[in-house]
Amino acid sequence: MIEKIFDIHHKSSDGKARTGVLHLPHGDVQTPVFMPVGTNATVKAMPKDFLEEIDFEIILANTYHLYLRPGADLVEEAGGLHGFSKWNRNFLTDSGGFQVFSLSKLRKITDDGVKFQSNIDGSYHFFTPENIVQTQTKFNSDIQMQLDVCTGYDEPRKEAERALRITSDWLVRAKKEWEIQREKGYKGYLFPIVQGHFSEDLRKQSAEFVSSLEMPGIAIGGLSVGEPHEVFTQFMNYTCQYLPEEKPKYVMGIGTPEYILDAVQAGIDMFDCVLPTRNARNGSYFTHNGMLSIKQERWTHSFEPVDKECNCKVCRTYTRSYLRHLFKEQEILSSILASYHNLYFLHNMVKEIRQAINEDRFEQYRAEFLKRFSSGNV
Amino acid sequence: MIEKIFDIHHKSSDGKARTGVLHLPHGDVQTPVFMPVGTNATVKAMPKDFLEEIDFEIILANTYHLYLRPGADLVEEAGGLHGFSKWNRNFLTDSGGFQVFSLSKLRKITDDGVKFQSNIDGSYHFFTPENIVQTQTKFNSDIQMQLDVCTGYDEPRKEAERALRITSDWLVRAKKEWEIQREKGYKGYLFPIVQGHFSEDLRKQSAEFVSSLEMPGIAIGGLSVGEPHEVFTQFMNYTCQYLPEEKPKYVMGIGTPEYILDAVQAGIDMFDCVLPTRNARNGSYFTHNGMLSIKQERWTHSFEPVDKECNCKVCRTYTRSYLRHLFKEQEILSSILASYHNLYFLHNMVKEIRQAINEDRFEQYRAEFLKRFSSGNV
Repeated sequence: MIEKIFDIHHKSSDGKARTGVLHLPHGDVQTPVFMPVGTNATVKAMPKDFLEEIDFEIILANTYHLYLRPGADLVEEAGGLHGFSKWNRNFLTDSGGFQVFSLSKLRKITDDGVKFQSNIDGSYHFFTPENIVQTQTKFNSDIQMQLDVCTGYDEPRKEAERALRITSDWLVRAKKEWEIQREKGYKGYLFPIVQGHFSEDLRKQSAEFVSSLEMPGIAIGGLSVGEPHEVFTQFMNYTCQYLPEEKPKYVMGIGTPEYILDAVQAGIDMFDCVLPTRNARNGSYFTHNGMLSIKQERWTHSFEPVDKECNCKVCRTYTRSYLRHLFKEQEILSSILASYHNLYFLHNMVKEIRQAINEDRFEQYRAEFLKRFSSGNV
Repeated sequence: MIEKIFDIHHKSSDGKARTGVLHLPHGDVQTPVFMPVGTNATVKAMPKDFLEEIDFEIILANTYHLYLRPGADLVEEAGGLHGFSKWNRNFLTDSGGFQVFSLSKLRKITDDGVKFQSNIDGSYHFFTPENIVQTQTKFNSDIQMQLDVCTGYDEPRKEAERALRITSDWLVRAKKEWEIQREKGYKGYLFPIVQGHFSEDLRKQSAEFVSSLEMPGIAIGGLSVGEPHEVFTQFMNYTCQYLPEEKPKYVMGIGTPEYILDAVQAGIDMFDCVLPTRNARNGSYFTHNGMLSIKQERWTHSFEPVDKECNCKVCRTYTRSYLRHLFKEQEILSSILASYHNLYFLHNMVKEIRQAINEDRFEQYRAEFLKRFSSGNV
């Protein structure tokens, strides 16, 4: 019997959105939650003081990168990801599966595992469902993900079927290995991943199989891989209906306001994305009225904050004019301040979402937010 | 009559070192003082929160860069450098003279001023002693520097003579323009620059001329331009003997512990350098036992702080192992943390120097510091 890690606090009367609390080894996490991505055990351009200041309760790190450098043994020796990075709240790590497909030069999937060539030095590596659980256990991840096989949007049906079959087999093996690690004292949780490409029958089959294993939470993978927004929403909602209501649900790789609002509407509790910080480094700021590109000429003499309604220290302190100057001069401070603002913005948005759900007005919040956000009236 | 901005607090009984306080428009500054360089109105990789946390009272910005981009008018419109960058303590700006010589593609010095081509877009510009005072007045610099003509270490005597003659003429013109700006309400101070290359007679002549004008403080330029360390020390000391004791003295462009200790020993009160932050971005950390290159293989499994005796938050939090990882992965956080540490280290060293002077044991402090620092036993 797997212990329960999730308490639903309030179910919105106007839809499937809900608030809750995830109980994890490094503290509770209020849901819905946006998790910033800290690929190399650092959220890019964000000192951990700033993450604590914003009050994130969980961040993500990438197994593929950390496995290659500095390596799982070193991270373990340092006291896991927490001891290594000194981020003492929760870490979720992905399985590396997605990066094997998106980054590595060569990959060969067999029933046993996936062989690939490092994108860094061309060395060969072999991931199995078991060794990926072991790796994430060395990281002491609070939530770890099973190794899965991702499929792109254009993949033929036959490939999607094969990917799902292997993903399901790997889940059984990953679960077994995770149980062994738990017996040895590991406190983190393993989440399975629903795959099934963009075929309803495969999605249903995967969702039902994953649900039958009674894992601590469930992730939905294979979405946000290049499909149109409405296809994403359709398949996320389609998948959710076959998942048990009481489990925390995580949609991987989304982080724009529109996608987050859709995910929450579908009853999703967790999401992550590199976009807020990557956009930041490219000078793109979230505002209530849409995206603001700080490089634009028109901000040269603008002594207004990026977003008047934002209470983050960047908006309370700096002008568009100064931020534009920093971006144009390629100052590191530009990346720092833009990352701070974008992460604060999403964190605050998700906080407002939780409040709206608790007050049974999520649909109203969503409609109002989207109306302004799509106005582009920055 | 020019108002007095400097109070000497204590003269060391064991030499020329002294402590004091500079009274500037944006607050008092304890001396000796190391000033971090914020070229583009930002100290590279350092959010201003961190500069405040370390407790710097003055930072430097570069007139050449800010004149070219974003331009003095914009900075003025933003409320000067303080309004633009939101750094509300003091700014010292250089005159741009040094960058005209080190960065610009083409330069032509006449008695009137210097014509040069921008290193950014090839556009032509003309600096005069007057318009450089006007520019720094638009910046609202707390201390501004006169336009001067720099000479390299290998310059022939004839060039050095010409450079000094022009620098002296320009000082008279700069002073006149500064007095006009003061009449109009500008609160900042103008510092003259002693030149004279590596010729004792020229240095003496320049020092005496500069002293005769009774300016608020005095800078020594044209040192640390490629000469051996002992030549630097010799000419700094030689120059100082012709400068009035009661004036604050500033040696431009030095920022290693050895040079700082030599400068303080010579009775210098102020210094600045890009080195601590540039070194930081290259993974080079100051420690009490010498420079530590974080990229070295041998720190892979080192879970010690960079410097056990350093109380900065980087040393109190992170290991060499993690900092090496960040550097190897070219993470922005590497530049942030290394810059923080190096600036903290120098700030703290200068604080210890002040205490040692006040307790009449500067020479002892200097000897002990240098002995350990040169050990290389990191």
